[in-house]
Amino acid sequence: MQATSLNRLSLVKIQLNSTPQKNVLPLLKLTPSNAPSRTSGGTADILPAERKKASFDVEEMIHFLNGGKENTKRRKFIESMVSKDPEEQHSIYNHNREESIKYSLKEFIRIHKPYKNFKATREDILFMSQVALATGALNNSHSIFIGTIAGQANEEQLQYWLPKVLSFEITGSYAQTELGHGSNVRGLQTIAEYDKSTEEFVLNTPTLQSIKWWPGCLGRIATHCVLYAQLIIDGKEHGVQVFMMQIRDDNHLPLKGIRLGDLGNKIGDHGNDTGFMFLENVRIPRDCMLMKYRRVTKKGKFEDVVKADPKVHYTTMMTTRATMVHTAAARLAYASTIAVRYGAVRKQGFVDVASKSYKDTEYAILDYRIQQYRVLKQLATSYAMKFTGRWMMEQIAQLEGKQVGIIKNSNLLKELAATSAGLKSLCTLVATNGIEEFRKCCGGNGYLLSSGIAAASVDYLWQVTAEGDAMILALLTAKHLLKSVGKLFGGYKLQGILEYFNVIAEPGFDLNSIKPHTPHNSNDYHNLNYLFSLFKYRSIERNLTVAKAFNELITEKEQGFLEAFNHLGLDLIAATHSHCYYIIMYNFINKIKETPDEKIAKVLTKLCVLFACCNLLDDNWGDVINETQFRVIRVVVYNLLNEIRPDSVALVDSFDFTDNVLRSNIGRYDGNVYEALFDSAQKSVLNQREPFDGYDEYLKPHVNKELLKKGNAPYLKSNF
Amino acid sequence: MQATSLNRLSLVKIQLNSTPQKNVLPLLKLTPSNAPSRTSGGTADILPAERKKASFDVEEMIHFLNGGKENTKRRKFIESMVSKDPEEQHSIYNHNREESIKYSLKEFIRIHKPYKNFKATREDILFMSQVALATGALNNSHSIFIGTIAGQANEEQLQYWLPKVLSFEITGSYAQTELGHGSNVRGLQTIAEYDKSTEEFVLNTPTLQSIKWWPGCLGRIATHCVLYAQLIIDGKEHGVQVFMMQIRDDNHLPLKGIRLGDLGNKIGDHGNDTGFMFLENVRIPRDCMLMKYRRVTKKGKFEDVVKADPKVHYTTMMTTRATMVHTAAARLAYASTIAVRYGAVRKQGFVDVASKSYKDTEYAILDYRIQQYRVLKQLATSYAMKFTGRWMMEQIAQLEGKQVGIIKNSNLLKELAATSAGLKSLCTLVATNGIEEFRKCCGGNGYLLSSGIAAASVDYLWQVTAEGDAMILALLTAKHLLKSVGKLFGGYKLQGILEYFNVIAEPGFDLNSIKPHTPHNSNDYHNLNYLFSLFKYRSIERNLTVAKAFNELITEKEQGFLEAFNHLGLDLIAATHSHCYYIIMYNFINKIKETPDEKIAKVLTKLCVLFACCNLLDDNWGDVINETQFRVIRVVVYNLLNEIRPDSVALVDSFDFTDNVLRSNIGRYDGNVYEALFDSAQKSVLNQREPFDGYDEYLKPHVNKELLKKGNAPYLKSNF
Repeated sequence: MQATSLNRLSLVKIQLNSTPQKNVLPLLKLTPSNAPSRTSGGTADILPAERKKASFDVEEMIHFLNGGKENTKRRKFIESMVSKDPEEQHSIYNHNREESIKYSLKEFIRIHKPYKNFKATREDILFMSQVALATGALNNSHSIFIGTIAGQANEEQLQYWLPKVLSFEITGSYAQTELGHGSNVRGLQTIAEYDKSTEEFVLNTPTLQSIKWWPGCLGRIATHCVLYAQLIIDGKEHGVQVFMMQIRDDNHLPLKGIRLGDLGNKIGDHGNDTGFMFLENVRIPRDCMLMKYRRVTKKGKFEDVVKADPKVHYTTMMTTRATMVHTAAARLAYASTIAVRYGAVRKQGFVDVASKSYKDTEYAILDYRIQQYRVLKQLATSYAMKFTGRWMMEQIAQLEGKQVGIIKNSNLLKELAATSAGLKSLCTLVATNGIEEFRKCCGGNGYLLSSGIAAASVDYLWQVTAEGDAMILALLTAKHLLKSVGKLFGGYKLQGILEYFNVIAEPGFDLNSIKPHTPHNSNDYHNLNYLFSLFKYRSIERNLTVAKAFNELITEKEQGFLEAFNHLGLDLIAATHSHCYYIIMYNFINKIKETPDEKIAKVLTKLCVLFACCNLLDDNWGDVINETQFRVIRVVVYNLLNEIRPDSVALVDSFDFTDNVLRSNIGRYDGNVYEALFDSAQKSVLNQREPFDGYDEYLKPHVNKELLKKGNAPYLKSNF
Repeated sequence: MQATSLNRLSLVKIQLNSTPQKNVLPLLKLTPSNAPSRTSGGTADILPAERKKASFDVEEMIHFLNGGKENTKRRKFIESMVSKDPEEQHSIYNHNREESIKYSLKEFIRIHKPYKNFKATREDILFMSQVALATGALNNSHSIFIGTIAGQANEEQLQYWLPKVLSFEITGSYAQTELGHGSNVRGLQTIAEYDKSTEEFVLNTPTLQSIKWWPGCLGRIATHCVLYAQLIIDGKEHGVQVFMMQIRDDNHLPLKGIRLGDLGNKIGDHGNDTGFMFLENVRIPRDCMLMKYRRVTKKGKFEDVVKADPKVHYTTMMTTRATMVHTAAARLAYASTIAVRYGAVRKQGFVDVASKSYKDTEYAILDYRIQQYRVLKQLATSYAMKFTGRWMMEQIAQLEGKQVGIIKNSNLLKELAATSAGLKSLCTLVATNGIEEFRKCCGGNGYLLSSGIAAASVDYLWQVTAEGDAMILALLTAKHLLKSVGKLFGGYKLQGILEYFNVIAEPGFDLNSIKPHTPHNSNDYHNLNYLFSLFKYRSIERNLTVAKAFNELITEKEQGFLEAFNHLGLDLIAATHSHCYYIIMYNFINKIKETPDEKIAKVLTKLCVLFACCNLLDDNWGDVINETQFRVIRVVVYNLLNEIRPDSVALVDSFDFTDNVLRSNIGRYDGNVYEALFDSAQKSVLNQREPFDGYDEYLKPHVNKELLKKGNAPYLKSNF
């Protein structure tokens, strides 16, 4: 095992510099209890007391969230793969870049190699997305690298490569993006030119901007990659094709004509060697092109093998996006677990304002309304997104029927696929902001990596950009919605999740007629149907209005599609996100109806109302809701915060993150946060030698040794 | 010089493992030009062309922002301290934790030691806050450690300690916060018990929660600290007092009874050894108590020396907060410089949607409306905050008159001081979110530390929490505003920046009477006076409403002060932030009036309108602005984005960050971002050995060497 309480490199250096290790004090042993002492924070009784206040059964909620008892069992099995070594769980936060790479490599192989024949169900993928945090370089090999082979290789190629990847005989990277080219796949500039004479493709990154840039696993670990390049035969462009190529030799050195490297340190995701690849006249044989759909004959003819079925593309993409929505929910749930537990344990501010002694009782920070608002709002959001992530998976399964991969209703599929882009966009953005907000709710200690929540915040950030930037994906959905609304005016009826737009085409339709009434008191805001009608109205209103504006630009101002689309970019994104919020509300409400457990239904209803009303307050509803209503909604929220507070610890316990997965000193199940904080501090990389590395060189020449020799001695003449 | 293109540790390990370095390819040399090639990104002509589009003179704007030509000279002098070594500027992003500590230590002493007699003016402090990024551990010693001595020590103590700190004979930490206690200073639990028999204080951290926790410089570097502890004499509590104490000996090892250490790795701020201190019966002599205001006699009598003058406390605090507001603006300006320049250089998406070739022209991302909105909104915000930061400094100077430290009008001071808390709260929050938004606008490359913007985002985060958590500080201002509004009903008139609330007490006052009219067209939204009236109205409305609600809770519902205050926490913060936005608008508008340069006034007016209108759209104005108006405001914003776009590069050039300060490969002045990105990638820590560290141990045992030996050889039998 690599994990020790000391950082390996520190050890190396201690030996090198032969600094006497005896200067370092032995670690202080800590003994958690209910009573504060020099070795106890005295918080051991807090979370058990919080748990007694719950209005519902946590076990039942766990099963409900997992989709049944059997699923819980399956999830626990997947979770059991995670290392249980407590020292290892801590030491990851001490790793430098090279150690992160090594650790994640070792762990990934340890976990996956024994299960190389494991067939993950859709449920399993959701569970993995909940458990897996920073999985490092090889996650690329096992997800998008394999995914591309599965999607683009013909049967023979698939049979040849797949087992080799699963058993780590080869490791692979998904080499699409370039230094100058990201989301615009059609604009990639890597070239694969077919050479008839040798039946090879000649690969080049002809300009600096065209070198491959960002692929995970490429920088240091991969032996192979799937390369996205412009196919050129006899000077003619045949668009972007995918090639399987080896990039490193049996000594793991780059093959001739290839330069490979890591891009440098990032804010997070330290275990992933996101890299670059420079290609100069690299030759690969003809059968390296992945040829499920198209191939190049010996003589250089580019031909179809089978017609690509867009449905297959849709399901793969939707599965990825459903997973990312679920991951967004899971990461937010992870952060909420830490923030809620810490908020219940952490105390700040005297209960009795008039008292003068420092020994007085203090409030838990979660008892402050402001903190409750910040924390419980995000907690409600993680429940909301979780249900939508699961719903997306269920939708794909339903469309397939009993035969996986065979889609019955293509129209429904297309609409779901389009919406999934917007959901990925919205949910990753919401999660990014939410996790960071939770982190801030943990005050100073949320800035320490060992809090878990700090690492979670920065490790998650790339998901907003990856697999389609949030803005670009939202615009993709916007384009579909724009066209769909347009179709309504041509007499076409929308199906599935877009069905609610059909009202627009009804005779005598007028936006005002479907606008929900302005409530006379707060009751309506407790009513899920009323709240739902608001979200529905806002989506219809925004999408219809932007469609009309678009039409006007095209017809009256004679703008081109791109120009008009760019002009209305902000409105289009707002319209898309409104549609996504409508879907999230739809799923939340439906999920509540599903449960037979009244207590669970009751607390979930409260969360759903909180989620909705916080959105009304914070998400610029001024163009829908009357000025006077905001105060009413605020009171609804305040009352809900009071009602949900006693359930808050139980609600995060229901996410069922074990301490092995949390890896957080402030979010521990037992609430002994101060012992854990001090323990991890003692093990900081910097504390492994005395004096610190650099003292002799940089500080010693300046300090006043004579003064320091005296210690704390009197230095003033004072006669008072 | 420590800086080399290779990471020191990598070198150490290469020697240790005697890996042949010959496997590492020599670096590819890059040659920026206007034409793309294998060694050129071909972007050299973009930013020069952008600069030609400016509507104003950048030099003039630079002087205007600095407060005159002389100030610009002064700023450039301060800036000239920053290292100009290009290799060093890059290598900081390769540092591991220990190297960060060493580097910042070395740099801080190099820069400051020659200027130990330098007297920084208020202007200088602002300029330093603009230039200084991650300054590391010793910044604590030179800021709050010295600040505390200056504020709490008597003349004799000050003369003794100050020169020693400035010349680095001693280094110090500000030891206030504890493991279990942050913002509630009165609740600190470290004990200083006076022992008459030896005329010493006996220091203890009696419980785990009371160990000192988070002080910068404490963990590894400090020889001394100012300790905040509860003074106890003969069993009687005398509140929190400050003590100067030595903590490390002449070999830099902790003195007896003291445990010291770093807290562990954080998300950012890597050069700072924020630490812990455990005290067990540590004895320090009587003259270690800092006794400007109070002292303990030999016999243990606690007595006043002079009555503490709250004014002095206010000015120190306000200077700190003014600096933090200015820093918030400066960091946002820093991030805007990178995001705007990169947005102009980076291209994405074909101009001609129908074209099929990958070689077609693409749009600059800054030409997309969505990107313009995100980027220019934050750019306008950095201008806005900059003016308010400077205004705060000017206000302090004005209140002092010609004699620094002597305040003429205490009432005005008190009001300004109270407002400064809210401004610190709002501006650090706005900057945190804004910097991160800018980072996201840089797509994938904004995730690399070498982008500069990534490091800036995480290194800045702690400012929201430090020197008073954003929520707690906002509530401090809220409390003052609540009391001030309350006083109005007692016939009292408010002065200075709160004067605008006096309207509330005028006879026949009614909120509706002061509510700005609903515009009939978009003209009013271009009018600074009209926009200002909206911000003014919102602040009055929110503060009055919350004051009434508070009064109701106290009188009708018989709640206690704390209970009512907690109940209305969210409304109080919203009211405070509205007041702060009012002040920011006030300063922005006044600043525009100051300039005689019409071109500058014109572009600043556009920025001010943009800042205001974006706020109307994004900051939940639904309870003030009529539902129909939001569409009008949106059109105003869209038009402004078009108008400001040609000036955007010039507007960030006006912040005048040199490349030495920016340390960003994507924000460079010359726009050669692709060469710089590739150059820094080549120098990644991970790229200094082949194969990577860990290959033999973790990957080699699994790979298929036989397969890899073959290279890219044909593997299928294909007859087509």
